[in-house]
Amino acid sequence: MRILACALLASLILTGPAPAAVEQWGVFEASLTGPADRNPFVDTQLSADFTNGHQTISVHGFYDGGGVYRIRFMPPEQGRWTYRTSSNHPELAGKTGSFDCSAPSPGNHGPVRVSHVYHFAYADGTPFVCIGTTCYAWAHEPDAIEDQTLATLKESPFDKVRMCLIPSLADPVFWPYQRDADGKFDPTRFNPDYFHHLEHRIQQLADQGVQADLILFHPYKKFAMSFFDRLDDAGDDLYLHYVVARLAAYRNVWWSLANEYGQVKHKTDSDWDHFFQVIQADDPYQHLRSIHNAAKFYDPNKPWVTHACIQNGSAVADFGRAVLYRDLCPKPIVYDEVCYEGDIDRRWGKLSAEELVMRFWLGTIGGTYVGHGEVYSHPPLGIDWTAGGGKLAGQSPPRLAFLRAILESGPADGIEPIDEFYQTHYGGKAGQYYLVYFGKDSPARWRFMLPQDPPHKTALAAGMPFHVDVLDTWNMTITPVDKIYTLAKPIDSDFPAEGDATVQLPGRPYIALRIVHWPDFSGHDR
Amino acid sequence: MRILACALLASLILTGPAPAAVEQWGVFEASLTGPADRNPFVDTQLSADFTNGHQTISVHGFYDGGGVYRIRFMPPEQGRWTYRTSSNHPELAGKTGSFDCSAPSPGNHGPVRVSHVYHFAYADGTPFVCIGTTCYAWAHEPDAIEDQTLATLKESPFDKVRMCLIPSLADPVFWPYQRDADGKFDPTRFNPDYFHHLEHRIQQLADQGVQADLILFHPYKKFAMSFFDRLDDAGDDLYLHYVVARLAAYRNVWWSLANEYGQVKHKTDSDWDHFFQVIQADDPYQHLRSIHNAAKFYDPNKPWVTHACIQNGSAVADFGRAVLYRDLCPKPIVYDEVCYEGDIDRRWGKLSAEELVMRFWLGTIGGTYVGHGEVYSHPPLGIDWTAGGGKLAGQSPPRLAFLRAILESGPADGIEPIDEFYQTHYGGKAGQYYLVYFGKDSPARWRFMLPQDPPHKTALAAGMPFHVDVLDTWNMTITPVDKIYTLAKPIDSDFPAEGDATVQLPGRPYIALRIVHWPDFSGHDR
Repeated sequence: MRILACALLASLILTGPAPAAVEQWGVFEASLTGPADRNPFVDTQLSADFTNGHQTISVHGFYDGGGVYRIRFMPPEQGRWTYRTSSNHPELAGKTGSFDCSAPSPGNHGPVRVSHVYHFAYADGTPFVCIGTTCYAWAHEPDAIEDQTLATLKESPFDKVRMCLIPSLADPVFWPYQRDADGKFDPTRFNPDYFHHLEHRIQQLADQGVQADLILFHPYKKFAMSFFDRLDDAGDDLYLHYVVARLAAYRNVWWSLANEYGQVKHKTDSDWDHFFQVIQADDPYQHLRSIHNAAKFYDPNKPWVTHACIQNGSAVADFGRAVLYRDLCPKPIVYDEVCYEGDIDRRWGKLSAEELVMRFWLGTIGGTYVGHGEVYSHPPLGIDWTAGGGKLAGQSPPRLAFLRAILESGPADGIEPIDEFYQTHYGGKAGQYYLVYFGKDSPARWRFMLPQDPPHKTALAAGMPFHVDVLDTWNMTITPVDKIYTLAKPIDSDFPAEGDATVQLPGRPYIALRIVHWPDFSGHDR
Repeated sequence: MRILACALLASLILTGPAPAAVEQWGVFEASLTGPADRNPFVDTQLSADFTNGHQTISVHGFYDGGGVYRIRFMPPEQGRWTYRTSSNHPELAGKTGSFDCSAPSPGNHGPVRVSHVYHFAYADGTPFVCIGTTCYAWAHEPDAIEDQTLATLKESPFDKVRMCLIPSLADPVFWPYQRDADGKFDPTRFNPDYFHHLEHRIQQLADQGVQADLILFHPYKKFAMSFFDRLDDAGDDLYLHYVVARLAAYRNVWWSLANEYGQVKHKTDSDWDHFFQVIQADDPYQHLRSIHNAAKFYDPNKPWVTHACIQNGSAVADFGRAVLYRDLCPKPIVYDEVCYEGDIDRRWGKLSAEELVMRFWLGTIGGTYVGHGEVYSHPPLGIDWTAGGGKLAGQSPPRLAFLRAILESGPADGIEPIDEFYQTHYGGKAGQYYLVYFGKDSPARWRFMLPQDPPHKTALAAGMPFHVDVLDTWNMTITPVDKIYTLAKPIDSDFPAEGDATVQLPGRPYIALRIVHWPDFSGHDR
């Protein structure tokens, strides 16, 4: 009788303080107490339906240890939301509540979505210019280093960070699973402390405007992998369900199924399909989903993949390459690993800053996105940025900030290749906005010319006026040219300027031109 | 009564002489007489089951005009085959017969299939090195020109020709449909004369060892297109069923659904899916199926596409490009149009022969295949080779013959990229055979080095001996280097030769090296 009474009492009480006002795309959390015996991670099903009257969203709850269950919800609209729980435990079922969702605070634009086929935008329509970096284990470090990483990111151009959920360090502060006295992991019991910590860091990234591109599996650190690689099917599903239930309400989460997925042992091709499907089914908000390759590629055209996450430095190492994947995959192409800025004696870790910045520009004019990484042999805190965060030592980040600023004042629907079959150094928006990039070439002048790809044959016409800025992408200067160029008649598909006008260039490498239709092009404001 | 008796009599007689001996992958043909009234193209269903005891193959027959019906069959195995017909007309149903299938004659290797994921082989296992050309309307010309085209092909390196089924000329000798006195086409009545002629030419190609890459739809010549573009769904299906019934028995047929498919008006994306499915269902032999793009690409990963047929000159215009489509499409990649050798004032028709040959080599080392085209402003017979065949005027064909000979003595399973992420000028078979291509560079010496892509980390080891030939791909010479190179210890993933040995080069452009494991690499014999 006493046990029953306690259970009844617990079932009526939402633990913790009443939720503070929740903003649109913020995290609402309901806490409930329930059974702590047996194995609540496995035995208890908990979910809730949230409705604002015209849409209903079902979310899974999760066990957070100590008899506490939580249900998180990211409201996609402002106004009054109510909810009702369901559970296989009567004391967790039928709980109801409500809250008011307020306007998003400045800087909160909602989750990022695919936009204009090959690009991204936040839920509120603000374009998302993806300038990512990689810090695999940054959230598994001591607090002082993690705080330093956040501080570094705050001063950096990076708006996305690739980070592992399963630690890739030998001795992380927390593991996601509980261990016994011998250090053996229990595949049926998660470690709430691990997740509390991770969630705190993800929220801090959100507050700083950084996307958390969460890598769910990876092949690194053999000791731990002999556990994580070999979860059975039920273990894999339990892991994915739990992670999505806990983290999907954070607006800045992206799901990256794996790093170098083909090297994750004991998982088959159909396992990866299944993992995508589990996440697609569980995630009420349909956060972005991708998977990262080594030698073997996963087909990004599969319907559950939202964008291609590609490791291939060669694809952005010269003109005319980046664009090609777009032809076979009408989704955003993110070259999330293109080798790293650094000085180590590995072929993937010795790019000059100039080379890495060039790869970003080559990807950009190809209508794709490029990611940053850094591995110096004597990093500032003794930690490689890309392994574990800390401080940046390289010279590329300010130049990537320059690129980001250029893109943020560019076409709202993203940079498209202009004429991929014939003119591979142009990107932009036909008729309105062009970036012309010269890479390592150092021309002293450039004969003005805009190509017209036949499919866009109405974009240009003789007589149209254009303004030119000379961009020094390395020295980060913008020099307007004091002249308006007027298109002459085309030769084949190419429009020179009247009088065969030229643009004077500084004779240095890494120069680009920004050519905009005058005077009526205006970029988007953030 | 007389009519009935005639019908009965006709139904018992197979018209024409008894079939000659049919060789494996040759064409067996049974002729039957049947109803000629109403519209036999639409009203009569005819098929036959062929069996050799352990496999049964169902094929469709077709109406060939004048009360004659035919059933064609390409026997895939030697020995005795028997058949029985089915029809909705009693006089065509239940006919039986048999024939003996003999060994294939020399040069008959059967139809071409996909082999080793990215490559091709004939049904008898002989590798097919795809060196294609394009002559859109060659089979719609007067006989003298067509005979000249066949003679030209016989002396050429080309083993595949892209050719339109629907004429792209304003005044072809034959149209595939019957016309009324006003020249109006009847979408329900085909013109047997057109097909007799086409079949004769296809068989002649087969006899010469040339694949007929048949283009079923295209957007050219507006007059005729206002008919062919606008067949209704039933008309499209009738066309496809008829073409497959007539032509599938020719071993050298490939189905190319369209040229520049996105520009074929009045056909939707789902139409193209459906057309593929119709052919896939009708064709008993599963000949290769593809579709050719202009600006818009069709997803070659769709299950009914056997290989990618790509128009994109840029993809083979420099190193490191061709390979990229392979990453997203694990099928043979055929760059069937990469601009043409020629001198006309259009950007797609003014490649130098040197440039076109280079594009073949760049495609080859990327593990892909490239196609030839030629448009000179003063062609030999007044006909552009690529528009209508005739005579070749360009300088690339002998160099493509040189390439073909190199490939025919190379690895039987095709040229694979060796290390696409870091060393884009190597192709071959790891550990056994390498082609190193220098393009427009003119080095005077080359420091011997073989890269080892980490996924193939057992292919190379210090101490392995290699022999080198210097290939001048333009002057068509093979110069053996009088030295055996022995691998030294690797530096990162690259193996130099002992003593840091170098190879002397002629200091001209378009040089390649052929590096083979010594002495035990041997290519395949044809």
